[in-house]
Amino acid sequence: MSLEIFNKYESEVRGYIRSFPVIFEKAKMAEIWDETGKRYVDFFAGAGALNYGHNNPEINTALIDYLQNDGIGHALDMGTVAKKSFIEAFVYNILQPRNLDYKLQFVGPTGTNAIETALKIARKVKGRKQVMSFTNGFHGMSMGSLSITGNSYYHDESYGVPGYTTQIPFHKYLGDKVDTVAYLRKILEDASSGTELPAAIVLETIQAEGGINVAGEQWLRDLRQICDDFDILMVTDEIQVGNGRSGDFFSFERAGIVPDIVTLSKSIGAGQPMAMVLLKPELDQWSPGEHSGTFRGNNLAFVSSAVALNNYWSDDSFSKAVKEKSALVQQRLEKIALRFPNYIKEIRGHGMIWGAEFKQPEMTSKICAQAFEDGLVIETAGASDEVIKFLGPLVITPELINEGFDILEGAIEKICQA
Amino acid sequence: MSLEIFNKYESEVRGYIRSFPVIFEKAKMAEIWDETGKRYVDFFAGAGALNYGHNNPEINTALIDYLQNDGIGHALDMGTVAKKSFIEAFVYNILQPRNLDYKLQFVGPTGTNAIETALKIARKVKGRKQVMSFTNGFHGMSMGSLSITGNSYYHDESYGVPGYTTQIPFHKYLGDKVDTVAYLRKILEDASSGTELPAAIVLETIQAEGGINVAGEQWLRDLRQICDDFDILMVTDEIQVGNGRSGDFFSFERAGIVPDIVTLSKSIGAGQPMAMVLLKPELDQWSPGEHSGTFRGNNLAFVSSAVALNNYWSDDSFSKAVKEKSALVQQRLEKIALRFPNYIKEIRGHGMIWGAEFKQPEMTSKICAQAFEDGLVIETAGASDEVIKFLGPLVITPELINEGFDILEGAIEKICQA
Amino acid sequence: MSLEIFNKYESEVRGYIRSFPVIFEKAKMAEIWDETGKRYVDFFAGAGALNYGHNNPEINTALIDYLQNDGIGHALDMGTVAKKSFIEAFVYNILQPRNLDYKLQFVGPTGTNAIETALKIARKVKGRKQVMSFTNGFHGMSMGSLSITGNSYYHDESYGVPGYTTQIPFHKYLGDKVDTVAYLRKILEDASSGTELPAAIVLETIQAEGGINVAGEQWLRDLRQICDDFDILMVTDEIQVGNGRSGDFFSFERAGIVPDIVTLSKSIGAGQPMAMVLLKPELDQWSPGEHSGTFRGNNLAFVSSAVALNNYWSDDSFSKAVKEKSALVQQRLEKIALRFPNYIKEIRGHGMIWGAEFKQPEMTSKICAQAFEDGLVIETAGASDEVIKFLGPLVITPELINEGFDILEGAIEKICQA
Amino acid sequence: MSLEIFNKYESEVRGYIRSFPVIFEKAKMAEIWDETGKRYVDFFAGAGALNYGHNNPEINTALIDYLQNDGIGHALDMGTVAKKSFIEAFVYNILQPRNLDYKLQFVGPTGTNAIETALKIARKVKGRKQVMSFTNGFHGMSMGSLSITGNSYYHDESYGVPGYTTQIPFHKYLGDKVDTVAYLRKILEDASSGTELPAAIVLETIQAEGGINVAGEQWLRDLRQICDDFDILMVTDEIQVGNGRSGDFFSFERAGIVPDIVTLSKSIGAGQPMAMVLLKPELDQWSPGEHSGTFRGNNLAFVSSAVALNNYWSDDSFSKAVKEKSALVQQRLEKIALRFPNYIKEIRGHGMIWGAEFKQPEMTSKICAQAFEDGLVIETAGASDEVIKFLGPLVITPELINEGFDILEGAIEKICQA
Repeated sequence: MSLEIFNKYESEVRGYIRSFPVIFEKAKMAEIWDETGKRYVDFFAGAGALNYGHNNPEINTALIDYLQNDGIGHALDMGTVAKKSFIEAFVYNILQPRNLDYKLQFVGPTGTNAIETALKIARKVKGRKQVMSFTNGFHGMSMGSLSITGNSYYHDESYGVPGYTTQIPFHKYLGDKVDTVAYLRKILEDASSGTELPAAIVLETIQAEGGINVAGEQWLRDLRQICDDFDILMVTDEIQVGNGRSGDFFSFERAGIVPDIVTLSKSIGAGQPMAMVLLKPELDQWSPGEHSGTFRGNNLAFVSSAVALNNYWSDDSFSKAVKEKSALVQQRLEKIALRFPNYIKEIRGHGMIWGAEFKQPEMTSKICAQAFEDGLVIETAGASDEVIKFLGPLVITPELINEGFDILEGAIEKICQA
Repeated sequence: MSLEIFNKYESEVRGYIRSFPVIFEKAKMAEIWDETGKRYVDFFAGAGALNYGHNNPEINTALIDYLQNDGIGHALDMGTVAKKSFIEAFVYNILQPRNLDYKLQFVGPTGTNAIETALKIARKVKGRKQVMSFTNGFHGMSMGSLSITGNSYYHDESYGVPGYTTQIPFHKYLGDKVDTVAYLRKILEDASSGTELPAAIVLETIQAEGGINVAGEQWLRDLRQICDDFDILMVTDEIQVGNGRSGDFFSFERAGIVPDIVTLSKSIGAGQPMAMVLLKPELDQWSPGEHSGTFRGNNLAFVSSAVALNNYWSDDSFSKAVKEKSALVQQRLEKIALRFPNYIKEIRGHGMIWGAEFKQPEMTSKICAQAFEDGLVIETAGASDEVIKFLGPLVITPELINEGFDILEGAIEKICQA
Repeated sequence: MSLEIFNKYESEVRGYIRSFPVIFEKAKMAEIWDETGKRYVDFFAGAGALNYGHNNPEINTALIDYLQNDGIGHALDMGTVAKKSFIEAFVYNILQPRNLDYKLQFVGPTGTNAIETALKIARKVKGRKQVMSFTNGFHGMSMGSLSITGNSYYHDESYGVPGYTTQIPFHKYLGDKVDTVAYLRKILEDASSGTELPAAIVLETIQAEGGINVAGEQWLRDLRQICDDFDILMVTDEIQVGNGRSGDFFSFERAGIVPDIVTLSKSIGAGQPMAMVLLKPELDQWSPGEHSGTFRGNNLAFVSSAVALNNYWSDDSFSKAVKEKSALVQQRLEKIALRFPNYIKEIRGHGMIWGAEFKQPEMTSKICAQAFEDGLVIETAGASDEVIKFLGPLVITPELINEGFDILEGAIEKICQA
Repeated sequence: MSLEIFNKYESEVRGYIRSFPVIFEKAKMAEIWDETGKRYVDFFAGAGALNYGHNNPEINTALIDYLQNDGIGHALDMGTVAKKSFIEAFVYNILQPRNLDYKLQFVGPTGTNAIETALKIARKVKGRKQVMSFTNGFHGMSMGSLSITGNSYYHDESYGVPGYTTQIPFHKYLGDKVDTVAYLRKILEDASSGTELPAAIVLETIQAEGGINVAGEQWLRDLRQICDDFDILMVTDEIQVGNGRSGDFFSFERAGIVPDIVTLSKSIGAGQPMAMVLLKPELDQWSPGEHSGTFRGNNLAFVSSAVALNNYWSDDSFSKAVKEKSALVQQRLEKIALRFPNYIKEIRGHGMIWGAEFKQPEMTSKICAQAFEDGLVIETAGASDEVIKFLGPLVITPELINEGFDILEGAIEKICQA
């Protein structure tokens, strides 16, 4: 199984192929096989893009059927039968049951396209350039998104990040005793704080890449209040933690708040590239075609997504199942944390996103490498990769959860003993 | 055929659905059908993303086969069998026959992701922030790409475009008598011109959205020489005019030049979302994972693209066929221009991208609407939409070219008489 | 005494003439007379530019003598006899006794020129664009200085403030319990805080315009330590609180720290326009003439400044006298605060800069207007002008201090009773 | 005559002391003496700040008198008797006879402060950030002014110049055949040029530092027309070429145009530091104190300036005398150019600013050094210092002009022979 052609022709920027140095061939729901036939349990879900699993049978069938009938594939933002079905599925299964009133904007099928779009419309509507985001936030790699992404690994003085953004401390960033929302209120109220009034505040309600940091529900409500009080748009980045990852369809639901703008990508396409921005109707102040993008009409994604929305979100059974599996994941992690108190600092998470923070960051990559060797795909998170994170498909079975955690626990044991 | 659900739920930003107010259902090569069964000839090719046609039979078969075998779909930048096949197809059919030595960087599957990546690596390698682009250039909608896109329709003071970019006049922008490359050389040589030495100059060798402006071959060679003389990276944006659109695989081939960085998207995925950046090996100075993106490993695109590259680019027969069809397109346009000299100012183009510039810009949208009514999908270009452009799939038959131009000619006649 | 010509021809931007609506004619030390002959005690000192008083006799004599002898006045940065004398006076009286090793850079004679210069050289030497400053900081009105000035009154979205600056909370900004230097250390240590490593941190050790906020000595030492630990340049803006205002020549002396760069203006010219930047020798990486300015060689300022330095700073008697007067000022203010506890929230200050913060900000301008009516020139400070500040010339006599405070106390009484 | 103390303590940035390595002591009108008593003719006038000569007798007398009477010196923007006199002198002698209707804004006494102010108010009033300036333009060293200054010697990637500025080619920049105003009109008219509509266009009608480039009168009128047609503010920087330098008080008078904003500094203070901005009344949209600056009320400058305005500008005799001397300067330069055709490429100039461009830029500094040795203070200009410039005080006598040119001609002869 030679990686020679990748090493020779692919840019040095390649990353995951270094962590998982094999050539993958097939995948089904929460299992993957490489070209030698070796099988892996999947605790990674394509970085959250495969909440409904790899090659989910009903989705697969719909895609094959669509292709066999020469259904139109690429259509920019023209009207298509598939797009119409998707809009219906999204409105009826997601928006209406939650009493959410949003306009749908289809954008180029990457999360960063959605964030760029949100930043633009927020600045346009409010007529202010300033935007706030949070320590440890991750929002993408294009110039606008990067300007609100915390991790300096992605920054470089030379390719520069333009101004007009301010990073503010996330919930608990300064410890349990400092109320970071109060700090935010203070600098907004104080005309001499040097902080310009922002058009928007962008946040993940659960920071994923940033190290699995779960914002408290009251903190989220306080932030919503600040946005109301200062006429600031609240933008929640649901790219990774939306689409059911938190147990609800949107991660903000648990706090009982309604953002002004919502960005969706990753699993919104149920395996196919797709991204979307939700706008409160009064914010939909675009001119026709003012923001465009070739692949904003990926009809294969509309087909797969409509199946997922209709199959999993027509009632709350899927949501309940996710929450039950969340309890299992938590239980397994707690057991591990109890067993390795010298190595594990804390476990934290919500829904189907969990992390175990290690006291020695350099251990995590060794453990993940060992786990991969033993048949588990799992990755790290956090500024120093100090967290091992569980991010399995939402459709993973309890059996596979247990199998995966058995492998992980064994890998930790091996590395700790070494 | 009601568009009500689109009007009610989709953002005001929607564009093409306004020009083509129907719901499309099926498509095959250069023909499209709406949900009522009405048939259209396609002179638009999804804005250049469908050079190999809609649902190209061999590509379709490969996709269906891949899905039926649970081939891995989404895999970030992990190694997969499909990706390996794509790299081989690209290296053997495209790079090696042209003696091109590039590293491949896979990026989020939109053109703007490729441009953002090119801007970043150029700035990083050269350690300079300044970038130059051209009047009427179009490179995308995210913050970095927008900063080098000319058309003010996409800009807004409030969502702002950061500095560090300079627009310079394209070939013939100031008429035939002003040598714009000489102007560029002058401001680069003059220490007091106020122009910072750029890391890169980004261009389309044929401006598409900008109005079908074809840069001369000598002008391109002079620009390459300036880049060499001043240690500036030449970046060609081949997103729309690469992938065979010009008759050659890359649009720069006709000038005998080799850019330092090349961006590819649209038809590189042969119908599936994909984008890629080619870097001269010495520029590949990324750290692992320094630039990332969820959907940079869209394996369905690898599957379809490999088929297209192997089928159409293993020898020069496809390239020859494209050039023959180019002659037919030119001939039909010249005939139309001769017939309507009071309305048409100029026709221009190259390969399978051609435009007719109208003296009265307000006529073009009426003509395109009439043509659509009569069964032809065709669009405009240029700062004031003053150009009607031919951008049919490269696989379109001569018969369909003639059918389409018959419709177009009839539409012009109807509008001119009205 | 008509202000008509000012009202008719001078821009609406005029400010102090509105607070003090008379035409001043003469001034001597800490007393001013308007054109009707009415006399005022001066608690303002030209916003800190007149530490040695108006028309200080020995300085005046030296200036007249210089003019009578046709001494060269304007000379850019050529060598002159007067400049040589100034350098000697500064080196021997100020730098050498304090064991300070700085190079002197003469800049255009405004404080903002000094700040712009400091920002440039810091960025150039460190090769980083980011600069940090503090909430409520005031550093000037030109584009670079404004970008680090907190008060939003001076900002406007349209004339914009470029990025690459971050405002951090000053000492006690978040109350007594939050250690703002610890917060700064945290965001600098955390690679995902979103905070770029700055080239420099710019501060006033006592914020003047910001409301008379005195940084604690330990806080200043902790900040110096952070600068050392992270290779950040510490820039102290001594424009208003240097030149003896704090009791020592430099306001940083009380903390026992040595900044890397120091900006001086206002009273450094002893009444004549002048500004200067002090650089640690290893930072003096300018090319000849790289930063210039017409009036950086105002020889009248060299003449007056040399007299002031030689007369007041050759031993510590002046410094001691200032500290004694500081005690008197504090005592008078404390008495006032005790008398009006319902109106005055807090008094604070150091050396010869003191403030009384009022609970109702709208009272301060009324009190100052009454005081002016009664013969005292005094001004407000703070984001909402909530502070009445004492900023008399350092050479003011105890008698005039008492006279001024008698007037102020009377004015407060009148306004409180009204 | 030791420069040791300067070499030891003054920053490496020092410039003119390197070209003129002596210590100057006295000066009178157009003559200077160093501390050894050596006499120099002055063809430099403090870079244009001494149009009325060094220690002009009537100005000197007025300054001495003011100081002896304890006239108020520093007063921020309070009303003073001296300021009132200045405003009257400026309005009656300058504005009214020329039918100019401007509001006066007093700013910190450096040219760059005036430019920063102009940029701010232009952006504020028009609500646009973009500003245009010209190749080879010079406007100052603070961040905003630097962003519109052409010469790269003053720029550095690290201390960066923010965006929102575009440099356009000055008159004749692309040779006699390319109409640069037509180019400007084209990019402003073309919505896809990539050029944002600017708030203002800033220019010197005669570029001084840029190499003595005199804009044609018709070109200036065409530019004024463009500003009118596109609602752009025309800002003329009269800092160096105003105050009579061109023969008229303002350098724009010769073209019969009226700018929207005018910046003045250098000789406006008649030897004392001063700067001022003139605004058309409708642009005077400042809030009180929105733009401030400590030394914007330098009363010594008001005193000296009022004398100069009343003495030299109450009728047109001074203007006529300047034009006569201009003819003499031109005649002497032409004679020199005829004598050294192999070395001198061109002479050009207007009023009392003239330059001789040398074919070999490296010759000019040698010639100036020789001339200084022989008793003449003269400097170079242009991006490569390729121009020797005449910039004598306007009050210089024909005898001293001839004496100076005799020295210059001799110096050229010596260097050419060497």
